Amino acid sequence: VARWQPGAPERLRASALELFCEHGYDQTTVAEIAHRAGLTERTFYRHFADKREVLFQGGEVLRNALCEAVSAAPEGAGTRTLIDAALAGVGSCFPPERRAFARDRAVTLAAEPALQERELLKLADLKRGLAEAYVRRGLVETQAALAAETVMSVFHMAFQRWIAEGEERELPELQRAILAELHALTAA
Amino acid sequence: VARWQPGAPERLRASALELFCEHGYDQTTVAEIAHRAGLTERTFYRHFADKREVLFQGGEVLRNALCEAVSAAPEGAGTRTLIDAALAGVGSCFPPERRAFARDRAVTLAAEPALQERELLKLADLKRGLAEAYVRRGLVETQAALAAETVMSVFHMAFQRWIAEGEERELPELQRAILAELHALTAA
Repeated sequence: VARWQPGAPERLRASALELFCEHGYDQTTVAEIAHRAGLTERTFYRHFADKREVLFQGGEVLRNALCEAVSAAPEGAGTRTLIDAALAGVGSCFPPERRAFARDRAVTLAAEPALQERELLKLADLKRGLAEAYVRRGLVETQAALAAETVMSVFHMAFQRWIAEGEERELPELQRAILAELHALTAA
Repeated sequence: VARWQPGAPERLRASALELFCEHGYDQTTVAEIAHRAGLTERTFYRHFADKREVLFQGGEVLRNALCEAVSAAPEGAGTRTLIDAALAGVGSCFPPERRAFARDRAVTLAAEPALQERELLKLADLKRGLAEAYVRRGLVETQAALAAETVMSVFHMAFQRWIAEGEERELPELQRAILAELHALTAA
C-alpha cells in the first residue's frame, strides 16, 4: 500500500461530510469514512486525530490567517485598518470552492449540540487570540477587544449568509455589506 | 425552623460569591455557603437547584427582560428602535448595586473553564432567543440575526467595561459609548 495518497485529506473530508449529512455525525465511523474515500483507516489517522477534527481542523488555519494578516498590516495602521486586515485574512480562508463543504459542515453542526458547543469555544478562542494580536499591534485593551469583537461578529454574520441556500455573493463582499449595515444601525 | 427567611437568596448569593473568590468555585460546598449565610442547606435548595445556579440564575432574568423589552417596543418600530429597546431591557437588569456581584462572578468564571463554557452557551442562547423575538416583531431573518448580534456584542463589550476595576459609568452609558465607537469604526 502506498503511504502517500494524492489528495487524501480532501477525499477523506468530502467522504466524511457526505456521510455526516446522510447518516448523522454520531452514526458515522472512521472506518466508513475511509472506505467511502477508497482509503484505509491508517491513512485517515495520518491526516486527522479523530472524526471531529475533520470539522474543526480549519480553526487552526483561521487562527494563523488572522494573526498573519494583523501582523502584516502597515506600520502605524489605525483600528479600522487593523479590522479590515483581519477581515481580509479570514475572507481568504473561504474561497468559492469551499462553500459546499461549509454548507454541509453547518448542516452537520446544526444536528449536534455538542458540536455547536465546540464551535462556540473555537470562535471565542479565535476572538481572544485576535484581541491579543491587536494588543501586540499597539491597541489599548478596550480598543483591541472592541476591534476583535467587531471582526468576529462581522465574519460570523457574513459567513451565515455565505452558506445560506441560494446566496451567490462571496464572503468579502458580504463582510462589506454587513459593515455598512452595522454602520447604519449604530447611527445616533 | 422558619420556612421563610427574609432576604435568603441575596444572603446565599453573597456568601457563595465570597467563598468562590476566597477558595475557588470547585472547592466550595453548598453546606459551606449555607453556613456562612447563617442558613440551612434545605433553604439553599429552596432557592437554587445547585451551586452553579447561583452564578447562572440571572440568565433567565435576562432572557425575560430582553423578550419583554422587544415585545413592548412601539408598533412599527424599525430595527434601530428594536435594538435600543433590547439594550435598555438588558441594561435595566444591572443596576449599580449589582456591580460588586458581577465583578466577583467574573473573577469566579475566569478561574474555571467549565463555567466559561456555560457562559458562552448562555449568551448564544440569549442571542438566539432575541433573534426569534425580532422575527416575531416582523424583521426578516437576516435583519433579525444582525440586530440580535449587534445587541449581544454591544451588551457584552459594555458589560466587560462595567465590571472593570475603577470603571464608574453605568451600563446604559457604556452601551451608548460602544454604539458610537462601533459607528465610527464601521465607516466606509
